[in-house]
Amino acid sequence: MTKGSQISPDFERTVPDGDERERMVCKRCSFIHYDNPKIVVGAVVVDHDDKIVLCRRAIEPQRGLWTIPAGFMELGETPEQGAQREAMEEACANIEIRDMLALYTIPHISQVQIMYRARLVDPDISAGIESLEVMKVDWDDIPWKELAFPSVHWSLRHYDMVRSVNNFAPFGNPA
Amino acid sequence: MTKGSQISPDFERTVPDGDERERMVCKRCSFIHYDNPKIVVGAVVVDHDDKIVLCRRAIEPQRGLWTIPAGFMELGETPEQGAQREAMEEACANIEIRDMLALYTIPHISQVQIMYRARLVDPDISAGIESLEVMKVDWDDIPWKELAFPSVHWSLRHYDMVRSVNNFAPFGNPA
Repeated sequence: MTKGSQISPDFERTVPDGDERERMVCKRCSFIHYDNPKIVVGAVVVDHDDKIVLCRRAIEPQRGLWTIPAGFMELGETPEQGAQREAMEEACANIEIRDMLALYTIPHISQVQIMYRARLVDPDISAGIESLEVMKVDWDDIPWKELAFPSVHWSLRHYDMVRSVNNFAPFGNPA
Repeated sequence: MTKGSQISPDFERTVPDGDERERMVCKRCSFIHYDNPKIVVGAVVVDHDDKIVLCRRAIEPQRGLWTIPAGFMELGETPEQGAQREAMEEACANIEIRDMLALYTIPHISQVQIMYRARLVDPDISAGIESLEVMKVDWDDIPWKELAFPSVHWSLRHYDMVRSVNNFAPFGNPA
């Protein structure tokens, strides 16, 4: 959950021809920046003992706090592949996607977050470059007060609600 | 399903500092264009007789062919609100979202498509500016050979598979 877009001072808000909304348009080259919502993909990853994989963030925002593996979906991958890639990058974790847990919307940062349930294929995990450390914890040992983002809370709580359920509609933002 | 990004000739592919992937970067102003996957939101909309709302496209691509209401999700809305907005824009249809039907990935055009099941709140529909005409059709009258996109096919087929099901995991791309 890093990188955003950087808008140069040459851009101004205007409604392009044939459009009905203001967009950022470069005054010099007329480049139209369609700023669409971005997709974050992540997973609640468990091992064979149902211990949950958490990563302590080495980067801002929320450096030092704990998260599930998650990050921006890239071009040319499916959301499932993106969640697998993020687990590898952040926790050196080889994971198998089980099913979709939730689809959250965070309008003020224009994110749609697609969260999956996943299993560790190999038991070994270790900190990737974006993590200070990683751990596998029992439910009772989750550091609830040191979680990085609301959607980490939501994902874990929702995961707990469907532990023994196999076919369910994904959760949305809590009320 | 219109508008994409327009890249100016000042942009070149290069790996920005601290990144691990090539991005489009403006040679003049160093603007970094993070080209993330875009989200399309749409719905299989039915009336009280289970007739399905279809729109004949007035715009390219696939002008003249039939689609379900769908289009790019905008900033500041939830996917559900986006699907409602598209139904209003394309079919002047006031709809109520029921649940998530499917999440498709179209990697070669970098789209994630979130499709819902929805009900018509008001029976009246009419062609919006992006539609030549709209109609409500029985299942047996769907113009299968004149559908605009594969994901319209998929959405309708998947809709049919869960007509009487109330709590299910969303479909993905057909195998």
